[in-house]
Amino acid sequence: MMFSLILPSSSKTMSLSGTPNYSSTVGGRRADFSTIASGFPVKVHVQTLLRKTSSSLQSPANSMKHEMDITSAPERKLVKQFMRASNTHSFVADSTPAVNGKYQKLTEDWESKKLDLITGGRLLQDGLVYRQNISVRSFEIGGDRKMSFGALLNHLQDTALNQSRITGLIADGFGSTREMSRNNLIWVVSTLHIVVDRYPTWTDVVEVDTWMYASGKNGLGRDWIFRDSKTGETLATATSVYVMMNKKTRRLSKFAKEMRDEIEPYLMDCECPIINKDSRKILKLDVSTADKICTGLSPGWNDMDINQHVSNVKYIDWILESVPRSFMERYYLNAMTLEYKKECDMDSVLQSLSKMVGGGNSDSFNANKVMEYDHMLRLENGREILRGRTVWKLKDTNSCVNNYIY
Amino acid sequence: MMFSLILPSSSKTMSLSGTPNYSSTVGGRRADFSTIASGFPVKVHVQTLLRKTSSSLQSPANSMKHEMDITSAPERKLVKQFMRASNTHSFVADSTPAVNGKYQKLTEDWESKKLDLITGGRLLQDGLVYRQNISVRSFEIGGDRKMSFGALLNHLQDTALNQSRITGLIADGFGSTREMSRNNLIWVVSTLHIVVDRYPTWTDVVEVDTWMYASGKNGLGRDWIFRDSKTGETLATATSVYVMMNKKTRRLSKFAKEMRDEIEPYLMDCECPIINKDSRKILKLDVSTADKICTGLSPGWNDMDINQHVSNVKYIDWILESVPRSFMERYYLNAMTLEYKKECDMDSVLQSLSKMVGGGNSDSFNANKVMEYDHMLRLENGREILRGRTVWKLKDTNSCVNNYIY
Repeated sequence: MMFSLILPSSSKTMSLSGTPNYSSTVGGRRADFSTIASGFPVKVHVQTLLRKTSSSLQSPANSMKHEMDITSAPERKLVKQFMRASNTHSFVADSTPAVNGKYQKLTEDWESKKLDLITGGRLLQDGLVYRQNISVRSFEIGGDRKMSFGALLNHLQDTALNQSRITGLIADGFGSTREMSRNNLIWVVSTLHIVVDRYPTWTDVVEVDTWMYASGKNGLGRDWIFRDSKTGETLATATSVYVMMNKKTRRLSKFAKEMRDEIEPYLMDCECPIINKDSRKILKLDVSTADKICTGLSPGWNDMDINQHVSNVKYIDWILESVPRSFMERYYLNAMTLEYKKECDMDSVLQSLSKMVGGGNSDSFNANKVMEYDHMLRLENGREILRGRTVWKLKDTNSCVNNYIY
Repeated sequence: MMFSLILPSSSKTMSLSGTPNYSSTVGGRRADFSTIASGFPVKVHVQTLLRKTSSSLQSPANSMKHEMDITSAPERKLVKQFMRASNTHSFVADSTPAVNGKYQKLTEDWESKKLDLITGGRLLQDGLVYRQNISVRSFEIGGDRKMSFGALLNHLQDTALNQSRITGLIADGFGSTREMSRNNLIWVVSTLHIVVDRYPTWTDVVEVDTWMYASGKNGLGRDWIFRDSKTGETLATATSVYVMMNKKTRRLSKFAKEMRDEIEPYLMDCECPIINKDSRKILKLDVSTADKICTGLSPGWNDMDINQHVSNVKYIDWILESVPRSFMERYYLNAMTLEYKKECDMDSVLQSLSKMVGGGNSDSFNANKVMEYDHMLRLENGREILRGRTVWKLKDTNSCVNNYIY
């Protein structure tokens, strides 16, 4: 079967039946991906592209044969320039031998970095997408043998860092580039939205894809798709926005030109995020109407990350502290939206507040199939740390090994 | 280079330069391992054997070529009988073709189970040792980029379960065999002793070996060695004793004959544990002399395991809650000995008590190079849950990326 895709900007025609061909630029910021199927070019969204390249359509091995791997900013820029200089459909066929030779050299130089021997992860789609298989470990599951929400979040962070590491973009700490390090800047999570359709279970192997894109003036967007590695079924999707913080002043920073130039070649040129963000505004939770307030929450001795603040994953534990366990026995966590307002450190003492919205209150929830909570974490002095929303779905009790934790 | 080993009971001569040869039984319970180097047989301890088979001497691929993989109790017993029936040094050379044929069939049948595709782990030494590489993930490190003690404990549990899974010994839950499941029995940790010489850092790859052996009348022993996969340097060693508990009555159970028969073929026939246990008795901590008491500790929504009690790893967090952070900034956790007395469940509320022994008290610790704490976890009604001892060593501050958490 012939199956071809044309990628934007650093554009390339991938073909499962022949040598890759490189096209001219076909679009601006928009995801002007085109497929040529049976000779008819059709515009498709990036979501389609990602679906098409899943294991159900081409094996990782096949996919890798047709991927270009350019892993540093200058080389990426150079190749993008070659792409743009070529106004013909097929770069290989129509450009000069000199340009072909230079491109060949670049790809050979960086070929060795395509596969990450530490994690088994690899770069796809011109190096813009990172893919890694993860197996669900015994320490990542809850009482029902299913991967915990916290473990899933751990892998969001880990695969993001692995992509930065394998591409060579990372210079220091948790994903800081060279320019960022020079300017004492670190990444912090601003917003995070996760939807889990089905939690994988112990020993399941999950295929994770992740990629970055520009998000507004000062943000870096990143999306993830978690799939069942056997069936290709989507298990979870996530989208996040990171911003820069000065690690000395602990104040947010602008996304300055030198950093943007450094990161731009690694960004997917798409109309992202591809997953549906929960766009409803999360209002600040009114303390007087909260269903439950947990007080005296403080980070454990091992909850700090190398950015010298509490790991954003720890916040999940605190949020869920305020959801009644009787509720968790009947409902599973389907989605979570978080807006991080302020970091907290080792000495912080927090309160976790929650309020059931649209379905009774936490003491008298009914049997609605979908329920929602609003959440707030705040310091004891009242300063807001995070606001969030969780969506819960009624469990199919027949499908649970046991019904102990969601 | 010629390098040969004779294994006990289900004994086999491994040779890197030819076909494996099988010897007769060479010992009882004791670790009568012999090496034949340069033609001279020399008795060695199991520790030497394990060191000899590290990657520095033979690659995993080479090692696997010469390993026999028998993965169910009946087949293991049968092969052991063949071994015992042969009174000559070389089983292959001297036994009948019929016996050779049967052995050949057995190994072929189970060959496919040798490599665990989920974790990349594999069986070595007649299937009695399980080896797995683990890479240190970003979510397993503390503020100093080093693997946390808790993460290390997670991998003790995980590799133990992986061995049981790959051999087919596991039938249900966290390592229960068929007979255990039939009798509603689960494994619980009775004692655990860990020594960490050096904590691996983020992206390091660690090679873990683990194996089981009989321990007293009612216990199952298990040891682990964590090595730097590049250099073979030992990073950590651990030894543990598991006992059986009835999951309905929650009372400990005897190691009955039907379970012993089922598990025996998977046990290393050795003078274990190979690592030096801290044999000093841990006295019950006198509450009136404790340096610090942390109260109101309760399991989080996700700290339960599939045995429907608090994961033993969670106890580590509670123990370390009572160690002053100012102390942790100067000392790193070198060793921990735990004696689990009673399980606790989701509704338990605990106290963590600690007392510095032999080096001042927690408010005025001196600059001794090695310091020790005694610990106790107890329910609020005073019932003892766990007693423990931790050994701490003065940090080499020069070698730390930062000095935030041990």
